Amino acid sequence: MSLATLLESLAIPIVQAPMAGASSPEMALAVSQAGGLGSIAVAAFAPEEIEAAAGKVRAGTDAPFAINLLVSAKATPDTETLDRALERLRPWYEAAGVALPERPNRFAHDFDAQFAATLRAAPAIASFAFDMISRERIEALHAAGSYVLGTANTVAEARAWAEAGADGVCAQGMEAGGHRGNFLADIEASLVGTMALVATVRAAVDLPVIAAGGIIDGRGVAAALALGAAAAQMGSAFLLSEQAITGPIWQAAIANAPDDPTRLTRAFSGRYARGLENRFMREMRAIEDELPAYPVQNRLTQPLRAAAAKAGDPQMMSLWAGQAVGLARPGEAGEQVRRWWAEAQEAARALARRTGVQT
Amino acid sequence: MSLATLLESLAIPIVQAPMAGASSPEMALAVSQAGGLGSIAVAAFAPEEIEAAAGKVRAGTDAPFAINLLVSAKATPDTETLDRALERLRPWYEAAGVALPERPNRFAHDFDAQFAATLRAAPAIASFAFDMISRERIEALHAAGSYVLGTANTVAEARAWAEAGADGVCAQGMEAGGHRGNFLADIEASLVGTMALVATVRAAVDLPVIAAGGIIDGRGVAAALALGAAAAQMGSAFLLSEQAITGPIWQAAIANAPDDPTRLTRAFSGRYARGLENRFMREMRAIEDELPAYPVQNRLTQPLRAAAAKAGDPQMMSLWAGQAVGLARPGEAGEQVRRWWAEAQEAARALARRTGVQT
Repeated sequence: MSLATLLESLAIPIVQAPMAGASSPEMALAVSQAGGLGSIAVAAFAPEEIEAAAGKVRAGTDAPFAINLLVSAKATPDTETLDRALERLRPWYEAAGVALPERPNRFAHDFDAQFAATLRAAPAIASFAFDMISRERIEALHAAGSYVLGTANTVAEARAWAEAGADGVCAQGMEAGGHRGNFLADIEASLVGTMALVATVRAAVDLPVIAAGGIIDGRGVAAALALGAAAAQMGSAFLLSEQAITGPIWQAAIANAPDDPTRLTRAFSGRYARGLENRFMREMRAIEDELPAYPVQNRLTQPLRAAAAKAGDPQMMSLWAGQAVGLARPGEAGEQVRRWWAEAQEAARALARRTGVQT
Repeated sequence: MSLATLLESLAIPIVQAPMAGASSPEMALAVSQAGGLGSIAVAAFAPEEIEAAAGKVRAGTDAPFAINLLVSAKATPDTETLDRALERLRPWYEAAGVALPERPNRFAHDFDAQFAATLRAAPAIASFAFDMISRERIEALHAAGSYVLGTANTVAEARAWAEAGADGVCAQGMEAGGHRGNFLADIEASLVGTMALVATVRAAVDLPVIAAGGIIDGRGVAAALALGAAAAQMGSAFLLSEQAITGPIWQAAIANAPDDPTRLTRAFSGRYARGLENRFMREMRAIEDELPAYPVQNRLTQPLRAAAAKAGDPQMMSLWAGQAVGLARPGEAGEQVRRWWAEAQEAARALARRTGVQT
């Protein structure tokens, strides 16, 4: 068995993108039940929650699913850095009518503990973004029966994962919503369109490639497979799903998005991410390079974003979304997967006709 | 008849990207003869050369071809602007061992005259980038029997062309090499990946969409068609063709390109373009926003680039190339088109198998 075999065995080669803060274990379950591959995004989960979420999916299906971790070293910012970063947020907290938070002691869950919990949960696939994990950890996952999927924004990152012993690569094109996974080059050098990234990564590494970024319907799924991807990963397409936890304000912003609605920002989290452009992104733009790196800035803006969501103000929320989000539609996640697959089949038929390989 | 019908009637729905300075009328002829759609890039052509080039293609085939113009108002920079821009180039000219040019009187061919020549040449398709043309000019082209194809980097630009009466849109994804065609928003807001751009443009306008950017082989062609594009435009894929005029230095740089080799720059021409990163791009980076706009900077760097090409120095040449250029291969343009089509057919068969619509 290999990851390639697992992906080939999927009735529907659609991977639900992890999307911490937007997806849910219920979404992962529905997608895996429908024949796709669900992903549980555990970045914001305590170790015991990781095992509980995996248990919830396992209780509903024997089908494979993925657990996705964001690789992040323990942050230890100094007091001055924190105070300066908090001061920069003061006008925003005041506008939201919420007290500026105290200096936090902790900025994210302990990655080592999250990794250990994932190892115990032993999902069919453990996927990673933001950085590499060690060869030893990859081997430990293999011993636990999990395939390792690394996120790459460039060919160089795909090669790094292949050399470390990963089983597959998720090629995250620049269209993708949410956080960029880049870990080798700066942001500009890490923005490659899905069409070019899948082609070049596929040629560079002898591993199955999952295409991510800009795939919003069944035509996109067919395009990704035609490019030679082993599966198509979809994120924005699920943001209006019944099982999404995006909430009414985020969902309304998507439903009413103008043309060409997204931009990259590091103002919310200290790491570049793509979302619907709003006032916070625009006004923080000039100083965003000076903000502390993820997860520090992410933690410092959390109460602000929560307050804005509660008050119904999309201008201070991180409305992560990809470049094709304007075509997202509501639906039940399992039904959506089946519908996109029917669309992909129709696209395959049309392509066969146009290329003359079938009448 | 409509542009959609014309594109459907192509034996091979592959459009050769115009690529001023890299393609040739001979390339356009070979592509159109092979059943694709050749494009003559006339940005650097005098009016009489436009008609001669069209005549050369017509002498070899009855098949349709396109003439591509870069829409550009007459540049009238003041003396101070020119002198400052030339001073910035002085160290580069010195390094190349070439005299700094005098202030030029002319920066590009007169667009009105180029347009008039194109109208007389009456190609099946007249395509435009860098800006819109007027509704009156679109109507004049229609009266001459030419379809009008507008380049769009965003959904907003596609809508603008549709409203002006264009017959189709070339959706230029951010992967594409050479100059960006954006004319409504700034560069950052105009970088949309091909996968997302084709999907969203297609949904926004009721016109045939030609997909461009990152399409480097037959799999890419199949992917573009699966996405719903009426044809796939390829540029970088032709840079090593026998009919390319890229020359030995540019071609060697492509053949030896590292992973993830391209960046955007406005240092060579005053308009953002994608090419293989080199020393000129890196070292001019800090001041590139201050340089005069196209075509002024383009004209001022021309003798430098020509001297560098002659001296065999790729570090001062504009090596335009798209993000997937590492997969470009040598060949005769017509044979290349037929090979990519055979690859697209194979990809269509594989997709039909994976989606279960064909055994």
